[in-house]
This record gives sequence, C-alpha cells and structure tokens, in this order.
Amino acid sequence: MSVISPRFSYHPPPISSRSNRRPRISCSSAPMDSSEKLRAKFMEFPYASAQQKALMVKLVSSVETRLGPSLQPCILPPDVQHFGNPNGTAHASIHLKSGIPSSQIDLILGSWIHCKLPSGGALNITSLSAYLKSSTDAPHFLIDLIQSSPTSLVLILDLTPRKDLILYPNYLKTYYEDTRMDKHRQYIQSLPEVRPYYSPSLYVRALISPTAILVNIDSGNSEAKTMEEIIRDHVGPVAEEMLQFWLDECACLEKCVEGDERAYLEKRDEIVKSTTIEVDLGSSFPRLFGEEVAGRVLSVLKEYYNA
Amino acid sequence: MSVISPRFSYHPPPISSRSNRRPRISCSSAPMDSSEKLRAKFMEFPYASAQQKALMVKLVSSVETRLGPSLQPCILPPDVQHFGNPNGTAHASIHLKSGIPSSQIDLILGSWIHCKLPSGGALNITSLSAYLKSSTDAPHFLIDLIQSSPTSLVLILDLTPRKDLILYPNYLKTYYEDTRMDKHRQYIQSLPEVRPYYSPSLYVRALISPTAILVNIDSGNSEAKTMEEIIRDHVGPVAEEMLQFWLDECACLEKCVEGDERAYLEKRDEIVKSTTIEVDLGSSFPRLFGEEVAGRVLSVLKEYYNA
Repeated sequence: MSVISPRFSYHPPPISSRSNRRPRISCSSAPMDSSEKLRAKFMEFPYASAQQKALMVKLVSSVETRLGPSLQPCILPPDVQHFGNPNGTAHASIHLKSGIPSSQIDLILGSWIHCKLPSGGALNITSLSAYLKSSTDAPHFLIDLIQSSPTSLVLILDLTPRKDLILYPNYLKTYYEDTRMDKHRQYIQSLPEVRPYYSPSLYVRALISPTAILVNIDSGNSEAKTMEEIIRDHVGPVAEEMLQFWLDECACLEKCVEGDERAYLEKRDEIVKSTTIEVDLGSSFPRLFGEEVAGRVLSVLKEYYNA
Repeated sequence: MSVISPRFSYHPPPISSRSNRRPRISCSSAPMDSSEKLRAKFMEFPYASAQQKALMVKLVSSVETRLGPSLQPCILPPDVQHFGNPNGTAHASIHLKSGIPSSQIDLILGSWIHCKLPSGGALNITSLSAYLKSSTDAPHFLIDLIQSSPTSLVLILDLTPRKDLILYPNYLKTYYEDTRMDKHRQYIQSLPEVRPYYSPSLYVRALISPTAILVNIDSGNSEAKTMEEIIRDHVGPVAEEMLQFWLDECACLEKCVEGDERAYLEKRDEIVKSTTIEVDLGSSFPRLFGEEVAGRVLSVLKEYYNA
C-alpha cells in the first residue's frame, strides 16, 4: 500500500453496462482465439500465490458459469485488458463482462495488479466486483485481496448496499439482518491472525455495509497457520459462501424496481462509480503505470463510465 | 451488556423539539427549586466512577453554558426524569432540554442508567446526545460510556451524519475529511488497552460516521494505566475536543437548509429517532425496569417523539 495514494484502496473500475449507451470501442478485429488468449492471460493471476489464484479462479468461474447466458463477452480493447508501466515493474489485467440488456447484471469486473515495491517486495491485488442494474436494488458484490508481503493480506469482502440503510431500514433487515450476514465477519475476525482494517479512504468506509469484512491478516507470527492455509481454509470458504448468496438471492432473484426508486438507485450507483474511478484509480494509476498508460486505461474506463 | 437485548446499545431517547408540536405534558406545578433538585440529582451521576462523572459533568456543563440562551428548561415529568424498577436494582435518570423555536437545537439529552448484574457487578451507562433541527444539516453529537465492570468500558463517540454519505459526498468532505475527524479515532485506537467494538445492532453500525469511535477499553491487564487514568488522560480530552468542534462548527454555525433538503433531513431524522426508541429502548427498558415503569417512560418519550 505504501507506493500508492493514502486514499487508495483498490476497487475494480465499474462501468455502465447499458448496451444502448455503450461507447463504440471496437475490438471486433481481434479473432476469437485472441479474445480467449486475453481471458486465459487474465485467469493466470500470474503474481498471486497458489491459494489466492485458486480462490480467484473459483470465484470468477462460479460467476461466469452461473451468469453465463446473461453476460456479453469482454469488449475492452486488448491494451486495456493487459497493460504495464514503461520500465516493466508494474503489470495489470482487467477483465470486464457486461450483462445483456434483458438481464439484471450491470457488469462483472475482475482484475489483478502487480507492482514491485522499492523495498524489494511486491504489491499484489486481485479483485472481483459484480454490479447490478437499477432494475433491482440488491447489493453489489466485492472482494479485494491486497497482499503486500507473503505474510500480510488485506481482505475486503462485502455485499455493498445500494441504498442509505437509515432511510431504508427494510433494506438493512432484508439483506443484512435476516440473512445473518454478520456471521461471516464474526467468523473471520475470530481467527487469531486477523485484526480489523480501517481503509484510509473515508469514502470506502462509507460505501461498505455494516457487516463488511475489512481485515488485515498477518501470518508473520502465526505458529499455527501459513497465509496459504488461512486463504484455503477460512477466507476461501467464506468468500465462496457470500458469492453464492449473492448469485442466488441478489443477481438471479428477479426484482422489479421502477419510477422514483429506480432513479434513486441510478443516481447513487453513478456517484459510486464516478467516485471509485476519480478518487481511487485516478489518483493511483498514474503513479503505478505512468501518465501515458494510466491516461489510456482511465480514458477508456471513463468513456464506458460516462456512457 | 449481558442483561439487555443483543440489539441494545444504549442511545438516549431523542425527542422532537418543535415546540408548536410539543405534547402538552405539564409539569408547571413543580416549583422551581424542585426542578433544580431534579437537575442536581441527574448531575450527580451517582453510580459512575469519579472520572466518568467528572467527564459527564464537564460535557453537560459545556453544552448548557454555550447553548444556554437557546435552551428551554427540562420539561419532562419528574417520574420520567428519575425512575427505577420495583425491586430497586435498576435506576435511571433522563434530563432533556429542548431548543427554543428560533434556535438550531432540537434537543440535548443526558442520561444515566444503573443496573445490578446477576453476577454481582453492575452495568453503568452515561450518555449525552445533542440533536439539531432540520434548519441545519450539521451532524448530531453522541457519547455513550457503557461500563460493565471497573476494568471494562465501551465508548461510543461520534458526530453522527444527517445525510447518506454516498449520495452527498460533499457532506463527507466537509464534516469528516476536511476536519481530519479520523485523527481522534486513530488516537484512541492507538492506546494499548483499546480494541474496536462492534455493536450487535447493525442499525447502530449504519447510523454512525466512518470516523466514529466505537471501542472496548479493557484495563484489566494493563500495567500502565487504570480505567480512571485512561478516562482522565485520553477519553476525556478527545470527547471535549469533539464536543467543542460540534458546538463551534455544528450547533452554533448558522446554516439555512430549505425545501427538499429540509424535508429529506426531517424524514431521515424521524427514522433515526423512531428506530432508536422502538428498537433500542423499547426492547431493553421493559426488562431493565419492568413493564409498568418502562411503559410510563416510553409512552412519554413516544408522545414527544410523535409530536
């Protein structure tokens, strides 16, 4: 985290999926096998540890398998799907699939970032975000694994609310109280290697739900478990269960939000996306990847975002 | 906390201060000296430790001194200002001063609760809440000290937001980012006796700001400091500084909120008050004070609340 902005807590850039407003960025010239190669390269998670990679592949595959018919292919230009900085010390991959117009899925966005640290170590971030359209008010899904050393991992795992939980107490009840969502946080925080993590960004703290898992896992002094074992035995099962809930009860449960409520969700989601791109990525990408590369990637993302 | 609802995290009951809608509960028959006696009895904080009492007296006095001309006398009936359960194991005091109609102050509410625990110890809660009217959008003020043993204290200290911090990013910037409000939380959480506290109520977690101080202070194993020293040297100065900020920049800084924004604040504040009374007090007061006493106190508070 030391190389990036104090405000930075990486969130995969969300992009509007409304196909009729999608900017015309063509990558149709890429043959099918090239598209598959780009996806395979993303799914390599080449800088993640074995267990971190296994978890991310499992999560991305679960989403793609379950939501497959509702998703379009990744249409980002190849040089936005994979990019690095000029001197080769930072690499990243972004894989984005929009929902088809008739679906509730806005977009699914997976990513990884690798950056060599001046100290000799490396920062490795792997993420999966899943955003829904305003036809449903169900929460989005978010997981970030931010590893700054083999023994230190920040985990952000949440179903992020779409509504103000004070103004909409039934929303709090439906998605967080009745579901006993807090049991996952309680379980993870009961592990001796885990302590709460406070994102330096107050926006991130305001964005997440009251049951969000925001923790720092430090296996450096652990006599019982290595980080790989903690990811395999604890983080993985909880992330899979929360994603399964999101797939069953949020993404695939038909809802019909209309009128003022829909306008409210659209406005709030737009602010979330705008703030995520402007504050988090806009402040960190130039330093991570240089002005030119960051400008290219961010301009494409913003074009999608503003569409 | 063991004797009360798992949802319970005590909040002083907030009551609407709009004088034209205030219910007609007369206590004008009480002579002035009786009113002063009731206040003096409240200010005794008879079950709090010396430092906890000193802090509460200082906070209440600061508010009353600074806001004096804007406050009406306490108009609660005497048996709502002081009450206990039939077998004498639980006592409480509520002291409420509404703002005058031309002020920005909705109400100031101080309270203490004492309850003998089956284990032989006692639960002592002291609180001060300060609510503003919808003529300003500035945060409310809240401090709760929940002491379940001489060496264990839960501290809740916050400027609670009036708006959804996602939908109103400038609100987050104005009151929490630009003010560097998080420094207080960071300081308190840097103390070795302090660890984060997660309220069992998701509503409380949703209510508070991203810079709220929600901590459990355990001086049981501390070789350096007693609880009294921690309150005197750390909790007190931070609480006083946050209250001073609230007085200067929230309560006494004239704002002029109108129209839709005012309606939004009124609606949100009403939900906050309603939820606080119904969920927190409504679920715990009957068990603490018996159905009859709880019914009397809650019905008066609800009458004020619904006014």
